Formats: sequence, structure tokens, C-alpha cells
Amino acid sequence: MDLTETPDIADRFARLATDHAPGQENRHPVDDVARLMRGETMAGRPVDFSHGDVDAFPPPPDAARLVGEAITIGGAQAYTEYRGAGAIRETLAGRLATFTGARIDPEAMILTPGTQGALFLAVASCVGPGDAIAIADPDYFANWKIPAFLGARIMPVTLDYDAPGRSDAGLDLAGLEAAFRAGAKTFLFSNPNNPTGVTFSGAEITAIAALANRFGVTVICDQLYSRLQYRGTDFHHLCAEPDAPDSLVTIMGPSKTESLSGFRLGVAFGTRSLIERMEKLQAIVSLRAGGYAQRVLLSWFAEPEGWMAGRIAAHEAIRDDLVAQLRDMAGVRVRTPQAGSYLFPELPALDTSSGDFVRLLRAQAGVIVTPGSEFSRRKTAGIRFNYSQDHAAAVAAMTRVCAMIARYRSDR
Amino acid sequence: MDLTETPDIADRFARLATDHAPGQENRHPVDDVARLMRGETMAGRPVDFSHGDVDAFPPPPDAARLVGEAITIGGAQAYTEYRGAGAIRETLAGRLATFTGARIDPEAMILTPGTQGALFLAVASCVGPGDAIAIADPDYFANWKIPAFLGARIMPVTLDYDAPGRSDAGLDLAGLEAAFRAGAKTFLFSNPNNPTGVTFSGAEITAIAALANRFGVTVICDQLYSRLQYRGTDFHHLCAEPDAPDSLVTIMGPSKTESLSGFRLGVAFGTRSLIERMEKLQAIVSLRAGGYAQRVLLSWFAEPEGWMAGRIAAHEAIRDDLVAQLRDMAGVRVRTPQAGSYLFPELPALDTSSGDFVRLLRAQAGVIVTPGSEFSRRKTAGIRFNYSQDHAAAVAAMTRVCAMIARYRSDR
Repeated sequence: MDLTETPDIADRFARLATDHAPGQENRHPVDDVARLMRGETMAGRPVDFSHGDVDAFPPPPDAARLVGEAITIGGAQAYTEYRGAGAIRETLAGRLATFTGARIDPEAMILTPGTQGALFLAVASCVGPGDAIAIADPDYFANWKIPAFLGARIMPVTLDYDAPGRSDAGLDLAGLEAAFRAGAKTFLFSNPNNPTGVTFSGAEITAIAALANRFGVTVICDQLYSRLQYRGTDFHHLCAEPDAPDSLVTIMGPSKTESLSGFRLGVAFGTRSLIERMEKLQAIVSLRAGGYAQRVLLSWFAEPEGWMAGRIAAHEAIRDDLVAQLRDMAGVRVRTPQAGSYLFPELPALDTSSGDFVRLLRAQAGVIVTPGSEFSRRKTAGIRFNYSQDHAAAVAAMTRVCAMIARYRSDR
Repeated sequence: MDLTETPDIADRFARLATDHAPGQENRHPVDDVARLMRGETMAGRPVDFSHGDVDAFPPPPDAARLVGEAITIGGAQAYTEYRGAGAIRETLAGRLATFTGARIDPEAMILTPGTQGALFLAVASCVGPGDAIAIADPDYFANWKIPAFLGARIMPVTLDYDAPGRSDAGLDLAGLEAAFRAGAKTFLFSNPNNPTGVTFSGAEITAIAALANRFGVTVICDQLYSRLQYRGTDFHHLCAEPDAPDSLVTIMGPSKTESLSGFRLGVAFGTRSLIERMEKLQAIVSLRAGGYAQRVLLSWFAEPEGWMAGRIAAHEAIRDDLVAQLRDMAGVRVRTPQAGSYLFPELPALDTSSGDFVRLLRAQAGVIVTPGSEFSRRKTAGIRFNYSQDHAAAVAAMTRVCAMIARYRSDR
């Protein structure tokens, strides 16, 4: 657990390995797995499950028009305040208040280069060398890497998402309290959880809020995928709790669900003093979210009638097909995602390491996935799929993945 | 000089004050200077010299078309490698090699969200808590703030740019050597220097390279404004030196000179291991420069015939007029910028503090400038102008600035 005490710079970068980071796969050759290969290469359209396919799910129709308009506006849109254009923040505050049910102050909001930008700023505003931070395990890979780079001490709290009959996220609340007692002054988690797609129950959200306030802990809640809720999901916004944490930053953004990743836009809102810190830091990290790109946010939560509902239904259909394929494989554990577009099955014992299997999938099946070790110290036998893909191609690719599991499983 | 030893987080943010940071002025009221005011408010079109006016100098004609094209391309442009699209890096490597005279490897290059992004990544890849870094004084405000935030020890090296008869930048080479002897393993400087617009002579560049190699120092050279060279300027690219530093990152970008700031684009190239570190860090700070925006870089160094020459001539004409106005004021020291669009006059003794005078300029003269304290521990009587403005408006604004100096000077 003690990742560091003011580490030296080489150590710090050694901890930032990006060999398996989503999107970087093509930088890393797969020749080294040739000796492990069983059977032939499988035919079929390659699918990169490491991120969503914006060609299968294109951005809303207004995006291109808005960025063109921004360029025409010129200086006023190019040079916004570091926290982002005031008029855009005001518009978003209203829409996000409607969505979450919380009161949102546009002056306690910052626009960032992607939600990744918001996450870095939020964490770096809360922890420095030696500070303790609690994070859920599993959770988004950067939730591990950002605190490690900052020299913070990471206290993982188990998310027992795949226990039989589980309907909440399965956060170990006793473990969370123990981390707070042991000195963690920050708790960072994603809801819906990335990589598993599970959402936190009302009871879990209320308990997190109560514990945070009892121990004076700042909570950073990454809700990037919270719009993509499937039928039957009862989503709870921590920011809208009657006793929400006194110190709270909520992160959202139109990156993935709306296929606007290419614009690098994120939004964080919450406790004013934290947003002020994030802005001070943004001033030296990237100055501001791209001025022209900011304008694209005007299309967010203002999509054409039915656009979002259609997008959710399409993702739910893909989810259902992929989950059914995986459930047909003996020894694969998978929980049905409640929101977002990630699927995180745990594989049966294989004759190869998890990292090699991921490379073999790429080399033999034309399928890119992200290994569980990016998200967890426990669930290293998991692999993550972003199933925001062409439906037919995703199903065909999952068929190949299942065939690969059959080839390499230890009990075959 | 000892800014810190692994400071606690509140200290760290206290050091990041952005009250006077360029672009943030409108967040800070000027009511508090009412009691100091002498004379009436001056009429005239307000001018914000804290940054360039992209309405006066619009982006090259291709920019909007390229970003539209990028959106049409879709996923391949939205999700590039973290270091940026390979094909774009290859194109840029060729053009930057032609411009600088250096060999440039596209695999040792990274695209970043603005040059600010490149600067943060480069510095954070070299120094951590307790590490020493040498920086020129004066230099860009973030050159002070980034190392301070990272908990590094800053060793300022005097830039005696305004000594009578000076034609080089005036870097104190003995002071630089002393900093290296005292343990600085990184040297960060901008060429042309921001805020003064002076450029480093061939002898200075050669000496920096030799000292860096003798002491095993990494050099980060910010050349953001190096394309905007005025007649008679003999610019020297450190990266093209026969004995260039073994460990070197050069930062450029199309932000200001080309009025492409609104896209947030920067480029860094140099020593491969450093670029690798920068990419690892970018993976957790912002993932990548906006995918669609990256494509705008294809218009960089490929502007229409005469476009850049016309832009330089227009800036030179503004520079000459503003310098002449300042030279007419007794007690104002100003050196003529050799490149870039910054002007950094040092004012005579005033009856107000420098910070109050900057606020008075805003309140009474409709002029926004950046105080010298953002750039220097020595030259706090300086004020910085970005004169990339409408020519007539800039001259009229400078007339008001001169009248304000006359009102508030101690020897009036």
C-alpha cells in the first residue's frame, strides 16, 4: 500500500507505465507472443474495444456547426477565463442541475480538457506527497496512476461488485471507514464504475456522504458515464444528497456517451474552494479547455428529441448480446453493466498470463481489450471491453474472444 | 531561493496565485484602487494587452476547414496515440527541421494541449520535490509557478537584457554555471524571451549547450515565438547546435504568432526518453491534444505565400510605434524586442505600487497589462504588453498609458 514517500523522478515515471493503457496498444509490438500461439489467426473485422467507436456512434449533429461558429466569434471564444467561458458555464449549470437534481453554481464550475483533465486537477488539488487517498478497487486506471505520480499513498477499498446476487456496487463501507480512520482525507471513485459498469445504490451513496462528513474527507466523484443508464437502473447522484459531502467535486463530460471525445471536454463542479484550486492548477497545466471546442458544450443535454434514448437503447442491445455470449462460457464471471459502455468479465484460469492473453487476442483475433491489471490489484484476470461499437462487429469479435478463451483455458 | 521542501498542499496552492495572471483580470475587481485615483477616466477603445487579439490578427484561412475535415474523418482523428497522430507528427518533423536546421525524429515528438501543456509536461518530467531547476529572470510566469507547484527549488539566473548597448539576451553565464555547480539538473528558458522579446546570441546559445553537457543538465527551451523574427534578428536554435545538449526538449506551437490559440496546440520535440516521459504524464493529465484540433497543425508552416511575412511586418510596425512612444517618456527604460510580440518597459518610480498601477490602468485607462512581478523577482517595476493588437487601438492605448505614468510618477 505504501506506494511512495516523495519518490525520485525516475521512480515516479516507472510507475506510470502506459504499455497497456487504452489507445496505446499500437505502439507495442506483439511479436513476443508468437511462441505462445495456439491455432491459426482468426478472420473478421478487427475491433478496438479499448475505447468507443465514434464512427459507429457519431457525435450529435450540432457539434461541427458549433465549433465553426466559435472560430467565427474569434477572440472572445479563443481566450476565455481559465475556468471556461462564463455564459457556457451558466447554461451548463442549469442543465446539470436538472439532470442531477442538485443546485449547481456556475462560479463553482470549471471546464477542462477532457474529463481526464478534470480528474488530474481534482486529485492534484487534494493530495500531495505523502497524503493518503482512498480509491475503489477496481476503478479507472488513472485513479491509481495520478495519486502515484503525485507521491500520495493509495488505500484501495474493495468493490465486491461480482458477489452472487449483488445489486448495489458492493463497496466495502467498513473498509472505507478504516481508510478514513487511517488518515485518508480524499476518496475518489467513479459512478457508474469504470471498468465494471455497476452503479452505487442509494444506501451506498448516503453512507459515503455520511462517512465523508464524519471524517472531514473530500470526495471526488467521476460520473462521466452517468447519462447512459439502462432500463431498471436507479441512479443516485452524490451531489444531490440532502447531506452531500461538504467537500465534493463531481466530474462529468460529453466525452464518450455523446461521442465528443475528439474535442477534449470535461466539466467539474462542486465545492468552490476546490474549483478555485483546480483553476489555479489549470493555469499552469493547460491554461484552459480549447476555447473553440468549449462551444460544443452548448449541444450537450440539448440533443435532438430521442437522440439520447436511441443511443441508450442501441448500447443496451449490444450489452445484452455480449453478456449472453460470455455467460455461455463456463468459468467466465460477468456482471451485467447498469450504466456506461464497459463490460469487465473475469476469465477462467488460462495457460498464459493475463497480459500475454491480451496480446494474443490482438495478434490472433484482431481484438483489442484492456487488461484488468490497469484497474485493479485484485481482479487481474479481468479484461475490459468498451462496447460502444458497431453492433455486428462487436458480436463477431466477442465470438472470437470466446474461441480464444477456449483455446487457452487451463481446464480445456 | 528555497521555495520549498515537499510543501503541504495549501502552501503549494498559495504559491499559485493567479490574481495577476494574463486573462484572469476580469475576475478581480478594481474598486479597491478608487481611493488612489488621480484625475478622470480616459476615453478610448479598451485594449487588453495581456494577450494577442485574434480578431485583429485572425488565424490562417485553412484552420476552420481542417477542423471540419477532422470531424468528418471521425474515430481515427478523435483517438490518436497520446503523443498525437503519427502522420501529423511526421509532417511537422519535416517542416520544423527545415525551420530550425535540426534533425527531428517524429517519434521523439509529442503534440500537447497548447504550449502550456508542453511546458508543464516537460518540467514535471525533469523535476520533482526538492530537485533544483535554473530559470532565467525575467521569464514566462509559468516557468516560476510550475516548478514551485512541483516542490522544486528554483535558482534564478539573471537576464541583464536592458544593460546599455546590449545586443544579446544578457544571460549571466557565470550565474548559470554556479547554478549547475550548486546542483540544478534542469535549465528552463524561453527564446525569444517572454516578457522582453530579446533573443539569445549565437555565443550565448553555444555557451548554454556547452555548460549543459559539461554538467549533465537537461535544457527545456521554449521557442513559442521564434517564427516572429524582426528584420536584423539573427536567431539561433539551440536544437540545431553542433554540440546541442544531449538532453534537450524544444517547445513550439502555433498558438500566438499564427492566432491559433483557440485550438490549444503545442509541440515538443527532442530527447526521446524525455518525450516518452512526457507522453506517460500526458496520459494522466489530459490524455492527448484535442484529436480534431490536431489536424489544424497541417496548416502550420504551410500558410499562403506572404501570409507570415505580412504578419511579421505588421507587428514590426506596431512595435516601432509603441517603442517610440515609450522612449519619449523620461525615466522609462525599454529595449526593442527582436522577436515575438511582447514589450516589457520598466517604469520610473511611481507614487503607487506596481500592482496598484496595473489596476489603475484598467480602471482609468481601459488598458490591461501584466505586472512584472509575474515574470521576475528583480524587474517588478516592469509591465508587459502583448502588442499583437489592432495597430491604431494599441497606439491610442499606449498614449493613455504614458499619460497615466505622467499622473502617477514620483518625480512629476
